[in-house]
Amino acid sequence: MEKVILAYSGGLDTSFCVKYLINEKRLAVHTILVNTGGFEEDELKNIEERAYELGSTKHVNRTILNEFYNKAVKYLIFGNVLKNNTYPLSVSAERIFQAIEVITYAKAIGAKYIAHGSTGAGNDQIRFDVIFQTLAPEIEIITPIRDLKLSRQAEVDYLEKHGVHYSWEKAQYSVNKGLWGTSVGGKETLTSSQPLPESAYPSQLKDGIKEKKLSLNFEKGELVGIDDALDSPVETIKQLEKIASSYAIGRDIHVGDTIIGIKGRVGFEAAAAMITIKAHHTLEKHVLSKWQQYWKEQLANWYGMLLHEGNYLDPVMRNIETFLEDSQKSVTGEVFITLKPYHFTIDGIDSKFDMMTSDIATYGEENDAWTADEAKGFIKIYGNANKIHHHLNSEIV
Amino acid sequence: MEKVILAYSGGLDTSFCVKYLINEKRLAVHTILVNTGGFEEDELKNIEERAYELGSTKHVNRTILNEFYNKAVKYLIFGNVLKNNTYPLSVSAERIFQAIEVITYAKAIGAKYIAHGSTGAGNDQIRFDVIFQTLAPEIEIITPIRDLKLSRQAEVDYLEKHGVHYSWEKAQYSVNKGLWGTSVGGKETLTSSQPLPESAYPSQLKDGIKEKKLSLNFEKGELVGIDDALDSPVETIKQLEKIASSYAIGRDIHVGDTIIGIKGRVGFEAAAAMITIKAHHTLEKHVLSKWQQYWKEQLANWYGMLLHEGNYLDPVMRNIETFLEDSQKSVTGEVFITLKPYHFTIDGIDSKFDMMTSDIATYGEENDAWTADEAKGFIKIYGNANKIHHHLNSEIV
Amino acid sequence: MEKVILAYSGGLDTSFCVKYLINEKRLAVHTILVNTGGFEEDELKNIEERAYELGSTKHVNRTILNEFYNKAVKYLIFGNVLKNNTYPLSVSAERIFQAIEVITYAKAIGAKYIAHGSTGAGNDQIRFDVIFQTLAPEIEIITPIRDLKLSRQAEVDYLEKHGVHYSWEKAQYSVNKGLWGTSVGGKETLTSSQPLPESAYPSQLKDGIKEKKLSLNFEKGELVGIDDALDSPVETIKQLEKIASSYAIGRDIHVGDTIIGIKGRVGFEAAAAMITIKAHHTLEKHVLSKWQQYWKEQLANWYGMLLHEGNYLDPVMRNIETFLEDSQKSVTGEVFITLKPYHFTIDGIDSKFDMMTSDIATYGEENDAWTADEAKGFIKIYGNANKIHHHLNSEIV
Amino acid sequence: MEKVILAYSGGLDTSFCVKYLINEKRLAVHTILVNTGGFEEDELKNIEERAYELGSTKHVNRTILNEFYNKAVKYLIFGNVLKNNTYPLSVSAERIFQAIEVITYAKAIGAKYIAHGSTGAGNDQIRFDVIFQTLAPEIEIITPIRDLKLSRQAEVDYLEKHGVHYSWEKAQYSVNKGLWGTSVGGKETLTSSQPLPESAYPSQLKDGIKEKKLSLNFEKGELVGIDDALDSPVETIKQLEKIASSYAIGRDIHVGDTIIGIKGRVGFEAAAAMITIKAHHTLEKHVLSKWQQYWKEQLANWYGMLLHEGNYLDPVMRNIETFLEDSQKSVTGEVFITLKPYHFTIDGIDSKFDMMTSDIATYGEENDAWTADEAKGFIKIYGNANKIHHHLNSEIV
Repeated sequence: MEKVILAYSGGLDTSFCVKYLINEKRLAVHTILVNTGGFEEDELKNIEERAYELGSTKHVNRTILNEFYNKAVKYLIFGNVLKNNTYPLSVSAERIFQAIEVITYAKAIGAKYIAHGSTGAGNDQIRFDVIFQTLAPEIEIITPIRDLKLSRQAEVDYLEKHGVHYSWEKAQYSVNKGLWGTSVGGKETLTSSQPLPESAYPSQLKDGIKEKKLSLNFEKGELVGIDDALDSPVETIKQLEKIASSYAIGRDIHVGDTIIGIKGRVGFEAAAAMITIKAHHTLEKHVLSKWQQYWKEQLANWYGMLLHEGNYLDPVMRNIETFLEDSQKSVTGEVFITLKPYHFTIDGIDSKFDMMTSDIATYGEENDAWTADEAKGFIKIYGNANKIHHHLNSEIV
Repeated sequence: MEKVILAYSGGLDTSFCVKYLINEKRLAVHTILVNTGGFEEDELKNIEERAYELGSTKHVNRTILNEFYNKAVKYLIFGNVLKNNTYPLSVSAERIFQAIEVITYAKAIGAKYIAHGSTGAGNDQIRFDVIFQTLAPEIEIITPIRDLKLSRQAEVDYLEKHGVHYSWEKAQYSVNKGLWGTSVGGKETLTSSQPLPESAYPSQLKDGIKEKKLSLNFEKGELVGIDDALDSPVETIKQLEKIASSYAIGRDIHVGDTIIGIKGRVGFEAAAAMITIKAHHTLEKHVLSKWQQYWKEQLANWYGMLLHEGNYLDPVMRNIETFLEDSQKSVTGEVFITLKPYHFTIDGIDSKFDMMTSDIATYGEENDAWTADEAKGFIKIYGNANKIHHHLNSEIV
Repeated sequence: MEKVILAYSGGLDTSFCVKYLINEKRLAVHTILVNTGGFEEDELKNIEERAYELGSTKHVNRTILNEFYNKAVKYLIFGNVLKNNTYPLSVSAERIFQAIEVITYAKAIGAKYIAHGSTGAGNDQIRFDVIFQTLAPEIEIITPIRDLKLSRQAEVDYLEKHGVHYSWEKAQYSVNKGLWGTSVGGKETLTSSQPLPESAYPSQLKDGIKEKKLSLNFEKGELVGIDDALDSPVETIKQLEKIASSYAIGRDIHVGDTIIGIKGRVGFEAAAAMITIKAHHTLEKHVLSKWQQYWKEQLANWYGMLLHEGNYLDPVMRNIETFLEDSQKSVTGEVFITLKPYHFTIDGIDSKFDMMTSDIATYGEENDAWTADEAKGFIKIYGNANKIHHHLNSEIV
Repeated sequence: MEKVILAYSGGLDTSFCVKYLINEKRLAVHTILVNTGGFEEDELKNIEERAYELGSTKHVNRTILNEFYNKAVKYLIFGNVLKNNTYPLSVSAERIFQAIEVITYAKAIGAKYIAHGSTGAGNDQIRFDVIFQTLAPEIEIITPIRDLKLSRQAEVDYLEKHGVHYSWEKAQYSVNKGLWGTSVGGKETLTSSQPLPESAYPSQLKDGIKEKKLSLNFEKGELVGIDDALDSPVETIKQLEKIASSYAIGRDIHVGDTIIGIKGRVGFEAAAAMITIKAHHTLEKHVLSKWQQYWKEQLANWYGMLLHEGNYLDPVMRNIETFLEDSQKSVTGEVFITLKPYHFTIDGIDSKFDMMTSDIATYGEENDAWTADEAKGFIKIYGNANKIHHHLNSEIV
């Protein structure tokens, strides 16, 4: 029997796919779950068991936090990437690396087919297919959910017919969790006017919690510790998420343009991501030049957009990563923050590269760096272009 | 005696200037205060009285809220302008229009000189001088504070010597108030690491205040009402500020690059500005195309930068305003918000131009707008460039 | 019989379509040719005759030079648009307005179908379909050439079978002519390495031709005359083309990214377009501010890209047009050029808005606009940011 | 006696400076000439002799072609940098590296002062001063020409008085030569309307010269050979200049915004630079992705601007260089050109990374890469955003 690799999540859609691929396509189904931070050990074990129960020839769980961090999250932090000024790409970024891991595995075991459970109405199908087709044009893609457009009930019935009797209650909200945040979709996000209820968010405000001051340690743009307890970036992000989620921080709703040209709306909770980005950004305001900040923002927003839209493999992404990495040489220091219920404040920074506390001059304070006459000379020439233009155009402007 | 126009604020520095210009420069001092929203009627009256007491030949108060709104704030809203992703240009924008009002008055009364109280260490001197030199190159600028670099005590002594016996206690924080927000500077903002204390902000959280839901009415990008009570934009902004300031919303610290090439840090409170911009931006995400949003952001950030840096008279500013205005044709609708202690949420929008609730298709939901095969055709061609590049470059990437 | 509108060019492909739509689809075929400058009166007459011979129910010729100029060429000049720094969008821009004219006609006569002769391998199918689907989603598109993928011989055979006995010799080069230039494709442009032979270009160097000096008159960015003989922009462009084509000016090869993600290569000859753009651009360098030029270039390149890629109806295009128009207020004056065999030079300009010959100061020449000390003051502060950064980072850079 | 380093060129201004610094400032004058390609060995020898005759304590000639190439020209090629779409920064780039070499020498020999001959009316004073002040704030700058504003005659008289009796005839044109081109200023470039006469350009068309075909070899973006005769980039550029200058190629006039806010105009001749950039750019169109080209252009234009304006030491310049370098991995291949009198053509390219001749698909030609239905699916979804917008906004657009 020919092999198909199925990106398996344990849910109804991909469970249906297992049975469907075995029974209708007569394929040996190899299932794989790629964990980018959303699954605990026991969940992974349950999913593996279920995969085998459904008939998987071979199931593997792959946890790729370090790779995901090193190849994407790191650059999203370097670039302070918030899609549409709001969304840290909590989940959309993960799809890319899940796709790469899946196709790499498919090639390694010599699969002829690869399958995923995306519908035809969203972004994920594009992210998966583009990665698959680019990295392994020789492997054919099968997408039962997109092709068949079955109702949930039809899928349940099919599974029942083939002896699978799980209970498939539909959760009220579709929740996707990962290292860089959790997305939440539900009936409110299908409207334009309604917010998600508090209860829809995975973390809840801890009763009676007190304000908490933290210091975040950055080293060349990477978050490497909290309160001087240094650790790897991945562990520090997880630790920060754990602390901050008790404050119900980092919730918002993202409205954006999808790859298929329509608008989409999704809620998310991303305490660690929001805090890390805002802290990192503040540090950069102190240590980078004006034009470094300007160009970082240009490139990073574009990076986020191409990543979001499944174009991670465009070579310009590698060029941008090089720029971003090079810009972080002096992004080292501490950022002081305060966690409060539902929000946080950036209180200040300390860095040996801080250009504000230079001994050359202090803004707004009298200093000996230049004289009044030098300031006047500066202004006189600084204003030349405006003056010449106005002189010639005063009648038409 | 020749006339000098002095931009007068009622404070120590410009009070010193009145006496100094009379006694040392032998000029007839005409004082003017340009109010962009920071002064109440009684304050204006007091300032006028003091100006005459100091020896002003003629004092005028000019309130220019509508002009300031129509020539700057409107475009800052259209462009969702937050300098360095933080600061609504609360006060820096006002300086430009104060300068224009002052120089226009100086030309009207045939003044030979114009004077202001800026030091040589900040941005304001540049904003004033560039506007003055551009619009009236024939009028000479006098800046006693910048030139003399006197201490506060020396200024007080000089005034005492000339019979002025006010009490000039130095406020702990330097506060500048206007329609679009209040800036707050003090000993903490001269450091990089310390936040302002709560008490430094002009508005304080009202004890026991409850969450409040509001609907903001936008018409072609302008805020024209709250909860369907329509009014002029200026009045609506003032009304929103009044409501929101009880929640201590809109506080933050701006760190940025000054015109003189050094970093500056300043606190601000701008409840109405922050809410208006975030609400407007959310509405735009629903009604503008992806590339409208992209280019608006590019141009608007630049607009904010040039405004901040005293280049309001660069003709590109007029071109950008035209673009921004043209982009607002469909930015009409309601935005739903909730005010909470220290923060607010944008809950959703309603607009007849909302591209999300189009009947053509809904993101992520099965629909009849296209088939699975059409989606696959899209993806196949969408991925062409990546595929061709990878095919040729797989060995070197 | 239901009506189909066919965009008809007189060539083999669309002639086949006429017969095919009548015989296989049983439709009443209404043919339309939209002339954007490539057809003379006698050609139009021949095409009309042929259309009727083939069985067209009704043929119309529409010449839309003014509309094409006012809605596209004007902005391409304002923006100095050269795709990939080379190609004036000679023909690709015309497709858009042909499509709009065709669909408008289709709606006017109540056609149920619309047909065009594009293949499935190029950009034109996308330009046509996107315009058609956007402006008239209720009209169904039929594309026999794309669907059937017939060889030329198969098309000829089909026509013969249906009594059409024209001679359909394949031209060595595919030539598309319009107001804004002529594109030329052939066997060389299918390679990457070969230039087109001289003979492939429509205009040839006139033997013994002498250098010729011209003055081009611009008024608010529009070309309105040659040597002070004023006329409409369309007539002036035609006149310039007539003069310059004797010099074999404006030939080049464009290599670019197509909408379908692959690279395409096409030759073109566009004497009037190249001269007009270069002359207009030079004038702008004298009369616009630095940042006007910068942002015009950003927006105009994007405008050209979206136009090229069939996104003329994206609302950002209207916003950009507004910006470009507003930027032209002072682009008035004369540009002096010299035509020479195969190339031309821009010799200089004359404009009352020329910022170079201002009496304020002249570059590089000693002047009284500022003193040495003022220049030193300017430089001292101008260099602050670099100095502060270097002071802090000298060890790591 | 304290030491001053003088950037010495052999001309009247800096010769005056030698005598002036010795006699009026009582300094030991160390002269240095930094050669970026404009001087032959015998000229360097003559300049050295004259320096000593004037009283230089110690003269050094430094030829820095490799450093200039590796630190600037290379990136100008990678970025296809033509300031204002015209000027290859022929000379302005060289000033930066001359300044760095001079200040490095000044620090090495422990000079207390550094002197240069710039006036107060141009860009060069800024480039020199900013570099000097940034890299050696402890060394004081002396600029006799800027400070004294002497006439040529007054300088000659001063030199005569001090026993220097050279003949100082003023050349009709001020010519600056370097590796990357030659700038030419004269009475015509002080106007806006007049071109330079042919005779003002350093190279002249060789009588009866025939068209010549060349192949340029590029390796990762660098020009490494002509007609497969491989050499270092510096040598290849010199060789190309030698061949092409007989064709009088690469002449033009640059009009641009100077650092001091006024417009400047300068002629230049830069055959090798123009050919290299156009050839490199064409190669890139074949081997880079659409967005690589887009972002390269954005960054490179900015790079050219900051370099031109004396901000070479802004750290963003290093970040941009990293991006540009990373983008060149596949810019390898041959470019075919033809040299003709006064102009040249790019005929085509050959590269193993050429994305046009991929076997995946050929533009405009029928192929098996996708079906008509797949193309239609692509277009349907590609047009979604326009369709939805138009559906909602048809009444207001």
